Amino acid sequence: MVPHLLTALKGPLLELERRLLDATPQIERWFRLEWQEHTPPVYCSTDLRNAGFKVAPVDTNLFPGGFNNLSDEMLPLAVQAAMAAIEKYCPDARNLLLIPENDTGNAFYLQSLVRLSAIMRQTGLNVRFGTLNPEIERPTLVDLPEGRTLLIEPLERRGRRIGLADFDPCTVLLNNDLSAGLPEILEGLHEQTLLPPLHAGWAVRRKSNHFAAYKEVAKKFSKTLDIDPWLIDSYFATCGAVDLDERTGEDCIAANVESVLRQMRSKYREYGIKEKPFVIVKADAGTRGMGIMSVRDPAEARELSRRRRDRLATDNEGIPVTEVMVQEGVATFETINEAVAEPVVYMIDRYVVGGFYRVHASRGRDENLNAPGMQFVPLPFAASCNLPDPKASPEVASNRFYAYGVVARLALLAASIELERTDPDQSLYG
Amino acid sequence: MVPHLLTALKGPLLELERRLLDATPQIERWFRLEWQEHTPPVYCSTDLRNAGFKVAPVDTNLFPGGFNNLSDEMLPLAVQAAMAAIEKYCPDARNLLLIPENDTGNAFYLQSLVRLSAIMRQTGLNVRFGTLNPEIERPTLVDLPEGRTLLIEPLERRGRRIGLADFDPCTVLLNNDLSAGLPEILEGLHEQTLLPPLHAGWAVRRKSNHFAAYKEVAKKFSKTLDIDPWLIDSYFATCGAVDLDERTGEDCIAANVESVLRQMRSKYREYGIKEKPFVIVKADAGTRGMGIMSVRDPAEARELSRRRRDRLATDNEGIPVTEVMVQEGVATFETINEAVAEPVVYMIDRYVVGGFYRVHASRGRDENLNAPGMQFVPLPFAASCNLPDPKASPEVASNRFYAYGVVARLALLAASIELERTDPDQSLYG
Repeated sequence: MVPHLLTALKGPLLELERRLLDATPQIERWFRLEWQEHTPPVYCSTDLRNAGFKVAPVDTNLFPGGFNNLSDEMLPLAVQAAMAAIEKYCPDARNLLLIPENDTGNAFYLQSLVRLSAIMRQTGLNVRFGTLNPEIERPTLVDLPEGRTLLIEPLERRGRRIGLADFDPCTVLLNNDLSAGLPEILEGLHEQTLLPPLHAGWAVRRKSNHFAAYKEVAKKFSKTLDIDPWLIDSYFATCGAVDLDERTGEDCIAANVESVLRQMRSKYREYGIKEKPFVIVKADAGTRGMGIMSVRDPAEARELSRRRRDRLATDNEGIPVTEVMVQEGVATFETINEAVAEPVVYMIDRYVVGGFYRVHASRGRDENLNAPGMQFVPLPFAASCNLPDPKASPEVASNRFYAYGVVARLALLAASIELERTDPDQSLYG
Repeated sequence: MVPHLLTALKGPLLELERRLLDATPQIERWFRLEWQEHTPPVYCSTDLRNAGFKVAPVDTNLFPGGFNNLSDEMLPLAVQAAMAAIEKYCPDARNLLLIPENDTGNAFYLQSLVRLSAIMRQTGLNVRFGTLNPEIERPTLVDLPEGRTLLIEPLERRGRRIGLADFDPCTVLLNNDLSAGLPEILEGLHEQTLLPPLHAGWAVRRKSNHFAAYKEVAKKFSKTLDIDPWLIDSYFATCGAVDLDERTGEDCIAANVESVLRQMRSKYREYGIKEKPFVIVKADAGTRGMGIMSVRDPAEARELSRRRRDRLATDNEGIPVTEVMVQEGVATFETINEAVAEPVVYMIDRYVVGGFYRVHASRGRDENLNAPGMQFVPLPFAASCNLPDPKASPEVASNRFYAYGVVARLALLAASIELERTDPDQSLYG
């Protein structure tokens, strides 16, 4: 499938994309040098928003699902990138334990697991699935489409190592975002590499740490390229102690909404953007967008309806919200047959391996497209993200995807820095 | 284009391919461990022959041309692999000097240079072309198809560094096989990485060193997989001092032909192969197959006609032959529309990035397909070499190409070992 985007880009973004294309050797060298200083997480997916005048990451997932949504053509790239990752962490690895999400009832997620395990197998690893789900007490065959099955087994802790009954892995690949908290069974492992590390899970991770690191990365990158960092970054602010039941923190949210909107209005004026700015209010820790709201007015933030407050008050695994992030809203400008579309870029190690569009017929340009219960249609990127054609228009697929790949890698770099700073063992970064 | 091969494979090879498919994780781990011990050359192409009962490398090129023959779909893989290579050798590199063959009159070769430079540019390098050709005394625009041009400039030596008038590269990529001898201008460079190193050039390199290393690699690999190494390797022998003008060395060649044929007959009997064995007689140092002859009988070797002797006596850049290699002939079993076809596999760093078939309508199954003046038709591989489907037949394209990729990587590993052993600076391998 070839995405047919009804995009008619406006001035600043076209200029930005042109700038990225022209500066390709400089950009690639910049990343090469950054990766000398920082180690990327084993994998990562980044949701981007292209507003027509700016393109920015809105979510960086360190436990990506959706590998099934990438095109088959991208698989060789993914395998090659995974080889580089495994060589780095555990060159003599023979066995890889993959820890999936606890819920094995989602057929799409299971297909992503199949894809991910096929990629890892092709790097020369025996891959098996060990679950944190206490309800799975014995090896269990889970049904897949087309009569296939997936064997999911209970994790076993033996001393300071984790594995399956007859399987001792060198590397453990976490594909569970740990929203439910830090599982004791994974703590204090010895001579086993956990990828990504425990503190990448939502039990510890905060979006604001990520976006604070992203802001620095975007600033440094923008300085090198002599562009306005706002074209690839969003304003945000946090409130540290919010209890919507007790109505504490509402003032902070309202003030932050006002502050972010004020900064946005100033930028909109600077670039002559006529649209009405909006902000996103979301939990600082958490995942699947259950608590994500669009707000256009500080008053609206105060008048959060009970229903909305309930939505925000718990994320999908039931942790009460105590920290809230208010972030500049970036509308998606891309549409496919009048449905709004949002690009998601996939990375393994430091390489962009592909991407897809999340296409929603029933959602607005200013709404979150990754909400539960909302089925999106995945549309795989039809070209790779690492082969721009500087002689062609920025709107050619390979050029647009290159620009997306650059911004996504900035988010990847931000994630690396975020994970360094939040690592409980700071002795590693002397 | 999808290759439609009129192959009807016989028993042993199908068994070998099945074995390779089933052992994929083991094979990939084996390579991963080998690459901990050895450093691959920056790039490499390997000509393979699939005889229907065995598949073996017949030539390993450390200065590959023909990048233009790879499919566009393989380019992202090539870029990603080149990024890995550059990171390893010169992470802060900004400028890459590419030294092409001296002859810039070959339009196909020029297109390969364009492809190769595009790949390297996409890793974040400024790429320019500096030539060893003394006839090019000033920057010269060479015409390409479709009205494009390529700027080739004379090399300049400044102290212990090499570059162009206004260009000081960190990395120098040799795409000149140095058949004409070691150029003084490239000797004793300081703080510039020459890739591959000087001793990879035909001025120093010997095919017999390569195939001796390949024999060891094939033996080790075959032991791991419990297969007969002969299924992926060929017998060979060398004669060290041949002067066909003086008719010295003819006895040695005849004896070696007899010896290799004898070993082959024994293997043919073991596997019930009814074909008549033949050997290849070629210069031990040299390139483009000007002096490559098929011989079926030791008597034939003694009765080399004057014409053939002349052909063997000089390679394409005019160096008299003094060393000769006699190698088991591997007929190509693959045909496309009745034309014989030979796979060529391309590698950058330790990754297989693609390949193509050399298709010749006018040559026999037991002849060299890479002879000058013989135009072959390139047919790009239609699938990648790193995504086998163990559930499908070995004859499916992705599975056949995986097997080719494995054998080609064995040749790549042999080239690494060969270059270590022949490095004039042995202090690097303590």
